[in-house]
Amino acid sequence: MLRLSPPGHQRFTQANTLEIVYGGGEANVAVGLAQLGHDSAYVTRLPAHDLGRSVAMYLRRLGVDTRPILYGGEKLGVYFLETGAANRASKVIYDRANSAFAEIGPGMIDWETVLAGATWFHWCGITPAVSPGAADACLEAIHTANRLGIKVSTDLNYRANLWKYGKKPVEVMPALVAGCDLILAGEDVAEIMLGLQAAPMHGSSGTSADHVRQFCQKLQQAYPKCGKVAVTLRRSVNASHNAVSAMLYAGQTLFQAPTHDITHIVDRIGAGDAFMAALIHGQLTYPGDDQLALDFATAAYAYKHTIPGDALVASAAEIEGMMRMDNAGRVAR
Amino acid sequence: MLRLSPPGHQRFTQANTLEIVYGGGEANVAVGLAQLGHDSAYVTRLPAHDLGRSVAMYLRRLGVDTRPILYGGEKLGVYFLETGAANRASKVIYDRANSAFAEIGPGMIDWETVLAGATWFHWCGITPAVSPGAADACLEAIHTANRLGIKVSTDLNYRANLWKYGKKPVEVMPALVAGCDLILAGEDVAEIMLGLQAAPMHGSSGTSADHVRQFCQKLQQAYPKCGKVAVTLRRSVNASHNAVSAMLYAGQTLFQAPTHDITHIVDRIGAGDAFMAALIHGQLTYPGDDQLALDFATAAYAYKHTIPGDALVASAAEIEGMMRMDNAGRVAR
Amino acid sequence: MLRLSPPGHQRFTQANTLEIVYGGGEANVAVGLAQLGHDSAYVTRLPAHDLGRSVAMYLRRLGVDTRPILYGGEKLGVYFLETGAANRASKVIYDRANSAFAEIGPGMIDWETVLAGATWFHWCGITPAVSPGAADACLEAIHTANRLGIKVSTDLNYRANLWKYGKKPVEVMPALVAGCDLILAGEDVAEIMLGLQAAPMHGSSGTSADHVRQFCQKLQQAYPKCGKVAVTLRRSVNASHNAVSAMLYAGQTLFQAPTHDITHIVDRIGAGDAFMAALIHGQLTYPGDDQLALDFATAAYAYKHTIPGDALVASAAEIEGMMRMDNAGRVAR
Amino acid sequence: MLRLSPPGHQRFTQANTLEIVYGGGEANVAVGLAQLGHDSAYVTRLPAHDLGRSVAMYLRRLGVDTRPILYGGEKLGVYFLETGAANRASKVIYDRANSAFAEIGPGMIDWETVLAGATWFHWCGITPAVSPGAADACLEAIHTANRLGIKVSTDLNYRANLWKYGKKPVEVMPALVAGCDLILAGEDVAEIMLGLQAAPMHGSSGTSADHVRQFCQKLQQAYPKCGKVAVTLRRSVNASHNAVSAMLYAGQTLFQAPTHDITHIVDRIGAGDAFMAALIHGQLTYPGDDQLALDFATAAYAYKHTIPGDALVASAAEIEGMMRMDNAGRVAR
Amino acid sequence: MLRLSPPGHQRFTQANTLEIVYGGGEANVAVGLAQLGHDSAYVTRLPAHDLGRSVAMYLRRLGVDTRPILYGGEKLGVYFLETGAANRASKVIYDRANSAFAEIGPGMIDWETVLAGATWFHWCGITPAVSPGAADACLEAIHTANRLGIKVSTDLNYRANLWKYGKKPVEVMPALVAGCDLILAGEDVAEIMLGLQAAPMHGSSGTSADHVRQFCQKLQQAYPKCGKVAVTLRRSVNASHNAVSAMLYAGQTLFQAPTHDITHIVDRIGAGDAFMAALIHGQLTYPGDDQLALDFATAAYAYKHTIPGDALVASAAEIEGMMRMDNAGRVAR
Amino acid sequence: MLRLSPPGHQRFTQANTLEIVYGGGEANVAVGLAQLGHDSAYVTRLPAHDLGRSVAMYLRRLGVDTRPILYGGEKLGVYFLETGAANRASKVIYDRANSAFAEIGPGMIDWETVLAGATWFHWCGITPAVSPGAADACLEAIHTANRLGIKVSTDLNYRANLWKYGKKPVEVMPALVAGCDLILAGEDVAEIMLGLQAAPMHGSSGTSADHVRQFCQKLQQAYPKCGKVAVTLRRSVNASHNAVSAMLYAGQTLFQAPTHDITHIVDRIGAGDAFMAALIHGQLTYPGDDQLALDFATAAYAYKHTIPGDALVASAAEIEGMMRMDNAGRVAR
Repeated sequence: MLRLSPPGHQRFTQANTLEIVYGGGEANVAVGLAQLGHDSAYVTRLPAHDLGRSVAMYLRRLGVDTRPILYGGEKLGVYFLETGAANRASKVIYDRANSAFAEIGPGMIDWETVLAGATWFHWCGITPAVSPGAADACLEAIHTANRLGIKVSTDLNYRANLWKYGKKPVEVMPALVAGCDLILAGEDVAEIMLGLQAAPMHGSSGTSADHVRQFCQKLQQAYPKCGKVAVTLRRSVNASHNAVSAMLYAGQTLFQAPTHDITHIVDRIGAGDAFMAALIHGQLTYPGDDQLALDFATAAYAYKHTIPGDALVASAAEIEGMMRMDNAGRVAR
Repeated sequence: MLRLSPPGHQRFTQANTLEIVYGGGEANVAVGLAQLGHDSAYVTRLPAHDLGRSVAMYLRRLGVDTRPILYGGEKLGVYFLETGAANRASKVIYDRANSAFAEIGPGMIDWETVLAGATWFHWCGITPAVSPGAADACLEAIHTANRLGIKVSTDLNYRANLWKYGKKPVEVMPALVAGCDLILAGEDVAEIMLGLQAAPMHGSSGTSADHVRQFCQKLQQAYPKCGKVAVTLRRSVNASHNAVSAMLYAGQTLFQAPTHDITHIVDRIGAGDAFMAALIHGQLTYPGDDQLALDFATAAYAYKHTIPGDALVASAAEIEGMMRMDNAGRVAR
Repeated sequence: MLRLSPPGHQRFTQANTLEIVYGGGEANVAVGLAQLGHDSAYVTRLPAHDLGRSVAMYLRRLGVDTRPILYGGEKLGVYFLETGAANRASKVIYDRANSAFAEIGPGMIDWETVLAGATWFHWCGITPAVSPGAADACLEAIHTANRLGIKVSTDLNYRANLWKYGKKPVEVMPALVAGCDLILAGEDVAEIMLGLQAAPMHGSSGTSADHVRQFCQKLQQAYPKCGKVAVTLRRSVNASHNAVSAMLYAGQTLFQAPTHDITHIVDRIGAGDAFMAALIHGQLTYPGDDQLALDFATAAYAYKHTIPGDALVASAAEIEGMMRMDNAGRVAR
Repeated sequence: MLRLSPPGHQRFTQANTLEIVYGGGEANVAVGLAQLGHDSAYVTRLPAHDLGRSVAMYLRRLGVDTRPILYGGEKLGVYFLETGAANRASKVIYDRANSAFAEIGPGMIDWETVLAGATWFHWCGITPAVSPGAADACLEAIHTANRLGIKVSTDLNYRANLWKYGKKPVEVMPALVAGCDLILAGEDVAEIMLGLQAAPMHGSSGTSADHVRQFCQKLQQAYPKCGKVAVTLRRSVNASHNAVSAMLYAGQTLFQAPTHDITHIVDRIGAGDAFMAALIHGQLTYPGDDQLALDFATAAYAYKHTIPGDALVASAAEIEGMMRMDNAGRVAR
Repeated sequence: MLRLSPPGHQRFTQANTLEIVYGGGEANVAVGLAQLGHDSAYVTRLPAHDLGRSVAMYLRRLGVDTRPILYGGEKLGVYFLETGAANRASKVIYDRANSAFAEIGPGMIDWETVLAGATWFHWCGITPAVSPGAADACLEAIHTANRLGIKVSTDLNYRANLWKYGKKPVEVMPALVAGCDLILAGEDVAEIMLGLQAAPMHGSSGTSADHVRQFCQKLQQAYPKCGKVAVTLRRSVNASHNAVSAMLYAGQTLFQAPTHDITHIVDRIGAGDAFMAALIHGQLTYPGDDQLALDFATAAYAYKHTIPGDALVASAAEIEGMMRMDNAGRVAR
Repeated sequence: MLRLSPPGHQRFTQANTLEIVYGGGEANVAVGLAQLGHDSAYVTRLPAHDLGRSVAMYLRRLGVDTRPILYGGEKLGVYFLETGAANRASKVIYDRANSAFAEIGPGMIDWETVLAGATWFHWCGITPAVSPGAADACLEAIHTANRLGIKVSTDLNYRANLWKYGKKPVEVMPALVAGCDLILAGEDVAEIMLGLQAAPMHGSSGTSADHVRQFCQKLQQAYPKCGKVAVTLRRSVNASHNAVSAMLYAGQTLFQAPTHDITHIVDRIGAGDAFMAALIHGQLTYPGDDQLALDFATAAYAYKHTIPGDALVASAAEIEGMMRMDNAGRVAR
């Protein structure tokens, strides 16, 4: 998608210019992985005009292989972002209906070819929300990946203003999630998307370790292929100040990351995608060390908040430096 | 519509920011009339979000009464404009399908109320091209204006990439044009839109006075309510340098304006709308003097090329100064 | 006034460009009310050149009726604003002497016409500080409003660098304040402007409820027409971080609002005007509920700090969302 | 003065930012001389706030000695400039009344000290137009320079919107001009400023060599101290395209410079001041060669049109390169 | 190289920001070919820091395969560009000494691998001018290409401020040029670079067809592998207005292209590289039609002048549209 | 040096423009002193092109006497600065090898003339790190200053990426430091630069008063000319939030300044230079009051963090206002 934002903290109605960024759930994960040093490719459908091509150019610049992209249709999805500050929340206006991507359907992508040689396939819950064709194409991809022995991950990512084509998430998502090895989900989203009954909460215990462990176990029981469940945690002081952390449930163990206090947020969009990219990086880079993988992913999650745009534009070395938490106040020279 | 342009002469694929302007055929005419000192109002349908509201705010700023605007729907029409230079043409990418305006239909606007007290109603050929509902609403307006004795003008304005709803212009336009008192049209457009057979041309005589006179007479015969026909003339040296003029056929006389050489074009979008606004201004302000009205309109037509954005942001005094053609090289201080 | 500011946190002597905003006490209140959904109009005098017209265009864009504005004189008041950060205070340089507005005088505005149909008239203490003519015109307006039964409010707003025409505030203000139904004032300002002896303070008790109640009672005794007195409270950690609250004394009761901590100020100019606009909105919208009106006004007061420019560019729904204090950290999508 | 301009070709009413430049007749000449390699100093009065200081900082940056500047008063003169294009003229709005400079008067500047060691003193006709005090201070300076044997030059420079303090130019200027060795003047300006009867013109012969020679002779007769008279010539095709030349009458000879065609004007403000600076440079650098001095000055006159801002920011070597007229189309690398 | 330019027509000493572009002779040709639809790759050496990586990111964005790039060294070559206007020439300041690229040497690039599967290899005369190592590496490449049967082209491109390592061009260039199939050269450059005695000229006949034919024949005799010689022609009216054309000598025939008048130059840097890319495109796309190939290349040469930056950001379809010379004045919508 | 920074918090690889500032250790101190009201001059060597001249213009603008600057060489030192935020550290890329300044050597500057009439000479530890010639020229200067009875100060300032010419700091620095009256140093830097053995630390006692006193005493014993030692203290919460303080050891007494909490850093580069300039100001302005001098210097140290660019652009009155710590939250109007 094309993201257009008023500069600084201008309101939509005050803007005379808009800043261009490109992004979207899976695209951000692809960029994050490329920046962290991996070969990553991205599959989508874009209109064959200069704005559609600009999306591919943007991704290619950041290291993503754009050869699998299909060209066709007329409309590029757009979203407008107003960046909040302190007590004023950020706002988004979507203009993505009838996009070239929404017109995608099963059979249009040759998944065998696209996935040949891949080790990991990631999708997110926004894709099946866009159109039945997108949901079907996603299911095709998951089945192909499963057949080829490629790991599959998802970020459930519920967007209330989508899912307008006559089906509820619970009618669509379970079949897709069933093919996944790693799921990033929150309890409330899992209830909406998968119909997973949330456990009763005592006080503000929703982010307590015990509660999260129960949720992850229940999710694993329902989706036995899923070996690992990740949950991100966020405490919002206000639009400029958040504290973030995460947990990872893997092999009966709940790993917990330290909390990062982000006192001056630059751009929080795409932080979850940065977490996902970094968690996949961790799975591939530190295969036996889930604590390290989680800590790295959580550091990337926090680090994204300091970077303009949708994507994690940062090297693995920079995230590792941040994990040591010892250098942010100094100038690296 | 929201117009988004890369700054300066950047190409679409080079842009990091987009400059915001709002515009559209009739909106530009409404702004032009307000700037020239008239009470003008604009009727359209906009989505009830901050971007939709920004269109109304933009128009109100420039003096247009926006109270008749309807709010509803979700999508604001967008067009992307790349500004050419010298040998490189400007380019436009439209993203206007399914806009709030396209969803308009008969009965949604109370034309009796909207037009109460008005002296002039203007519409352009883009409106009926957008959707059957828009065409029907436009016909309602014209019939109401005719009934109330309000003058009606149109700019035929053919856009090949519209008219996608299954009807050809010639099936729709004649009924609309039949209610008009003043038509701005070129011969080629009149052929497409009205089925008016073009006269055979001898050499490059298409803009000769005789040829234009014949065309105007033929158009008047077909549409006898139409008392006056205007034709704009443009010689394109390149994207930065054009020469413009115009003719007006009224009461059996063909009036011809001087030619203005615009050697350093700033923004040529909306020049035709500026001409239309200034011609209406001329009709209202110099009622007996069609030569003066035409000269004023042609000066405004040229002047618009020096103004950023879609609309004629200029006072009548400024256009009159330009008509005397004696001050552009000096600094007005 | 035309406000010109170096971008970001540049110092005056570092600036190469200046950002344009328009504003002024009563103008900001008029914009705030228009944004909150009310019909609001603004009366002033502006020079009849393009910069003067730009003020009216700016106000009209934001929904204010500018038809009552007079045109004449040569100079538009200007103020230059340098935005501080952390330990560096913001700075203002005024260039408003001899402005078109300062040349206003009694008899120039037909208040009967301007105020016809109005329900509320607001003025602020800067107006009578500018020139004797402005003070007299203000008094005319207050008397007219009183005669027509229109509610009158004021924000005392003392500016030490004005009041240069030979009279002290105490010689001018009491007659004006006597016609007011609602006064926004601090104790120190009331002493300077109205000669109201401040009560002795014990420790830092100046903002304690008891102390504020005493002050309000004393003010009411001196100005019996005044049914309600509002006091805004501000704790300045530094130029980027303030905490704000407010109290309202009405019908023998002192209402207290919660405190809003604004950790990342975007623009604090006009916050008091935003409070005033929102308090008038509250009086009109929640007539029986002074607590709700005060809470709404205080939320608007805080919210303004996050918005670039002088005025509260926000809808009532956005302020209400902020009052619930539950959404700033999330992205509204 | 502080000059504020909308970027690009925006109109005043379209601007959201203003670009800062500083300038003024004599200041521009001082900068031009400093850029051409001379020690130059500038005398004026500026308010002692950050904007006043910014003027001095700007001049110092460009090489001008600012130590003679007086600080006092409150207002910095401002002018707003809208840059025209093609058929649209540039516009200026002045806000210079009551400036710190206008409050200057005789006795405030110690001219003996300021002019000690100087070889040239330049003033322009805007200074005596501002206030009687400025005219008197200017006269003091000229008398001091005459006494010290310092050459004096002037650019008559008539501004119709000044001269508002009750005297006509002809009551003030002759006494000032009497002390000048070099005068830059046009015939129409000399009539207004000095009461010098213009010769009858035959056709468009106003810029013919014979006509100019007669004018110069008449001026010299009236002001016998004046050894040289310069006249600049400008043909305005439109706001973006001018052709310029100049003539110099010295020692009974009329020297004529070639014409420079400036097809893409960047900024024409200050071109006359650039001519003046370069003519003084020529007098000092090529003492026996008036043709060379004139050609250099005319090249600088043309060159200024390509430079943003009020002043000639160019080295003598660059102007000499331009005189050879052989390099503009190439990239100097 | 990193190119840094003051915005608009600012002079170096006026700039507060610099605009970033990346470029260089061969890089521009690689981008041009990628934009015209070819698989193109670029070989260079860049420092392994964020600025070095930004060059590769820029090239990848525009479609160039950057995998052959070596990383090492510390300095990225920089050039500063001041864009002239009208009578003021553009200026360049180089800061490229000791760049990572200058430290390249023979044996560092595995040309067999890099050139595997290629059909064309292009180099330019700036490379051997930078350092002996770069000259040697270039010779390695040419020999490898020759051995593999890959076509080789060169643009002689003399830069007087390079060639500082103790050898004259004529000591180095002939061995390199001997391996070329297509040479872009001017007569003066061929004399400096290759010692080729220029023919005596009669009047301004240097660009006459006869004279160019003689030059090409002489060049071919000296370098018999070279089947085709191209010569670009440029008439510089001033820095904003040039007219360009070109000739191609192939198979005893001298083909001549039409002249393109570029009245409003946006950016003329890289025009020669655009010509070269388009000429290679023509050789590959219209193999039997040298006239068409030349016309296409000349159209691209002209078109580049309208595009900001160093490179031809344009599709083959856009250049073909320009060849028809029929659309620049219209808006493509 | 030329400093180039991406705007806002963009990463290097995201930048399309770079903001220009000029700076460097001693240059920043010179600017700071000029801003605080002192006559200050700066000696360096700059290339004689427009970028070199721009450095001098920048310094002159801010009040520094640039007449002692030598012109020669080709390269201007450049550093690229990426500004971090919250948990992301700022980054610097240097491109200063082979600069005109590094080519400086003994005998090139006539120190007797340059220092004539001076009261203070300041140098910093970056200068001798650049090249042996720079170290020798620095030693010349110190010896001359000592001979002329001019106070000498230094800021040890270790940069690990310099010192590449074959000598270690301890081989060079002691001879230079021996001539200093005032040293700004940290314990770790003193160990690297001077070989001064650090005292064993107990816990985090490195910044305790006792520990600092011991360090200062040891430094004074080694360098008996040095009457005063200053140590700055910084606690880095993150890249946007630091707290700073300082101590000064003078005449057997350790003075301690209050701590300033800087919660919203704008630009922390040059803060140490601001401290140094303000400490010299304090020595000159409050000769008997080291506590006041230290408090002033520490306030300037903090204040610099709120100012864009390398230098302290602030008056003594503004720093004094900040020392009272009573005005940052208010608008100065």
